[in-house]
Formats: sequence, structure tokens, C-alpha cells
Amino acid sequence: MVSLPSEREPPIAGRRPPNTVPIDIPDVVIDRLPLYYRLLARLEAENRPVVSSHELGEELGVTPAQIRKDLSYFGRFGKQGRGYSVARLAEELRSILGLDTRWKVVVIGIGRLGRAIASYPGFEGQGFDIVAMYDANPAVVSTEVDGTIVRHVDQLDEDLRRHPVDIGIVAVPAEFAQDTVDTLVQAGVHAILNYTPLRVQVRDGVELRHINPVLFLQSMTYHLKRVKNDR
Amino acid sequence: MVSLPSEREPPIAGRRPPNTVPIDIPDVVIDRLPLYYRLLARLEAENRPVVSSHELGEELGVTPAQIRKDLSYFGRFGKQGRGYSVARLAEELRSILGLDTRWKVVVIGIGRLGRAIASYPGFEGQGFDIVAMYDANPAVVSTEVDGTIVRHVDQLDEDLRRHPVDIGIVAVPAEFAQDTVDTLVQAGVHAILNYTPLRVQVRDGVELRHINPVLFLQSMTYHLKRVKNDR
Repeated sequence: MVSLPSEREPPIAGRRPPNTVPIDIPDVVIDRLPLYYRLLARLEAENRPVVSSHELGEELGVTPAQIRKDLSYFGRFGKQGRGYSVARLAEELRSILGLDTRWKVVVIGIGRLGRAIASYPGFEGQGFDIVAMYDANPAVVSTEVDGTIVRHVDQLDEDLRRHPVDIGIVAVPAEFAQDTVDTLVQAGVHAILNYTPLRVQVRDGVELRHINPVLFLQSMTYHLKRVKNDR
Repeated sequence: MVSLPSEREPPIAGRRPPNTVPIDIPDVVIDRLPLYYRLLARLEAENRPVVSSHELGEELGVTPAQIRKDLSYFGRFGKQGRGYSVARLAEELRSILGLDTRWKVVVIGIGRLGRAIASYPGFEGQGFDIVAMYDANPAVVSTEVDGTIVRHVDQLDEDLRRHPVDIGIVAVPAEFAQDTVDTLVQAGVHAILNYTPLRVQVRDGVELRHINPVLFLQSMTYHLKRVKNDR
């Protein structure tokens, strides 16, 4: 994902109680928090009491100054020269990121990609529950995938109005991507993870992320080309 | 993907011949270029002669000032008040990003995810050629996937030394991720797209991107939690 630039200025840092984070945190900072959390969860499992911004930075390839700046948006967790309390910072990030909550997810498009997403091992224990799957292909509808019966996409709108969900993962053919996203958003879904190559549009207030491997590859070929030219 | 912060200062902007881009372009800028290119390619296909930074910004959700700043790293493409030449800017971005080159790609791990990646429709016509696939599962090795015979991963190192490739896409189970990446890097692969949940390590000089849907979901639940709290 490309982090869109934020031109917002950081708010004045200060100690804040959990869950009352300020409004204007740059998206690029939010996008780094899951990385911080993942590392902290590992340190927590290893019973590490404290960690320095230097060590966090080393592990994540970010400067210690950036770490301190990022975390200062959410209050002061560290003590000068003593590092961060691993347990406290992990707990705070869980709360900030909503990882102490369970989230209902639907997957639309149960082809190869949709199946791969539905069985992605990394979801385990992260609070994301795939509650329903949808497809339009008669050969797929009513079959069982990972213990869930695939429903026809025509039922999506009615299902969502009856049983609201939090997140929609879209893995349909590109030509159906925008329609699918529109259905999700109109039925009240506030977060969309788009796996199609199409750059779909959503109204303000809906979170949208694109996972398009071509864009990742293209950002690497820039560097590859320089390597080739140097040889 | 999370764009790691860059603290480098922009170089002095100026007109530069193609392919002699300066060294110190922030990664966050490089990561936006494929988005610019995709939009420009569409405008090119529509025979649009010029486009303003305002219009580019509108389409991409980036400020016009940011667009002008990003593109200024690569020379001056626009004329004040006249906009950018679509054809010239698209051509330049193709060259900068290495999209005028064909890139050899291997996919390692031909489970659900690997198959989905191999058949991703967005690769078509983008210059990425999947030249080989590897797996360790005897039920998968020697079978045909999208016209390619899957080879045993034990052959990977020898194959790469005989037939060098540019990019390795890794979709193996997490416990084999680091070993697979090490094999690729030691055999001279300079770019890795990691689909496993493990945050693998590579030596300096190797490009690495992670595609982990959990991190995308977690960056959205931060916002979802605020929406829920507001209700």
C-alpha cells in the first residue's frame, strides 16, 4: 500500500488516557502502528519488561527519533533513558488499533484469490472473523470453503442489512469491483480491503486499502533498474 | 505496505535527462510513482494531451503541491499554468520505473495463495513474466499450473544460478519463509515480494516488500474503532 501523504502537523504531545487519541494523526503513522504492535507482542511473549526506541528502530528499520515521534501522538509511554514498558505499550496499541475487539469480515469473490485470503494463516488469533463468503459462480455457491457455505452475491445486500459486518474483502473480477464495493458501503460497511486491480472509489468516511501486487513490483523495479544499470 | 519514513532531504530540482535520476529519492515518493503511472497510462489511452497537477491530485487523493514536489525529483515536466504533457510524463515514468523492461519472476509456494498470485490478472501486459514455480509438496511438484510445470524447491538454488531471475515472490508457509528468502538472495535475486505473515530479513541492497493483509486490516480497525465509539 502506498501511504498517502499527510500535511497535517502533529498535535502537541502530552499524556492522554487510553482511547481518547487526538483526531489528527497522520495516516502514515497509523499505518506503522501494526508493525510496532507486532514487534511488541513478540517481546511481550518473551517476557521482556522494557524496550528502547533504539531497539524498536533497529528491528523495524525506522530511526529511533521517528519511533519516539510516532508514539508521542498517543501520549508519553517512555521514560527518558529507561525505554518503553513493553506490556503497557502493547496494551495501549491493542486498544488504539482496536485489536481488543472482534471484527466481522465478509469475503466477496471466492475464486483462487478469495480462497487464499479466507485461509490466510496470519488471520488466526488477530480478532478477524470471516462470518460469510459470497460468489456469483453457480459452481461455487452453496459449496463449503473452510467450514463456511458460500452464499450467492445477490444475497449480500439483504444479509448485510440483517447482520451488519465491519469489513468487506473484495476479490471479485475487476469489472465487478466497483459494484461490489458500492453494495458493501450502501449496506453500512465502513472498511474495504480491495484485492482487485481496479482502483475503486468510496465515499468519505469509509476506510479503503488496496492490495495490488503490481504496484509493489513496480516500486521495486525502479531500484532493480538502477542495479542493472550499475553492472 | 507501510512506507518507511525517509528523512532525506529532496535534492535540488532541475531538468535532467531520462535515466539519470538522482540517488536520494525518498522511498515514499518512489512508492507513489506506480500510482501516477497507472493514471497517466489511462489518460494516454484516452488521448489526453495534458493534465494538471490539480487533476492528478484529485484522482489520486493527493494535494497538487505534493504531486508537483514528487515529480520535481525527476526533472521539470510541467509548464506553469499549462499542466504536464501526458505522453512525455508517462514515457518518463515508464523509464524511471523500469516498465520498459521485462522482468523475470519466480513464485515459490504453489498453494492456494501462490496459485492466486500466479494467475493474478493485473500482471498482464505489465512486463512481469513468471518463468518458474516451485513447491515442496510431492502432490504439487511436476503438476502444471497456468501452463508452467511446478519444480521442486530443492532445485531452486541451482536453477537460479543457471537462469538468473529478477524477482522472487514468496508464498510458502511462514516457517520456511526466511530460508526461502535466503536461498533467493544468495543466488542473486535482488527483489523479494513476501506474502508470508513473517517479517523476513534481507541484506542491504535487496528490495523487499511485504504483503500481509492483517497489517492492512489493523490499520483500518483503528478508524473503525473511532466510528464505533462515536455511535
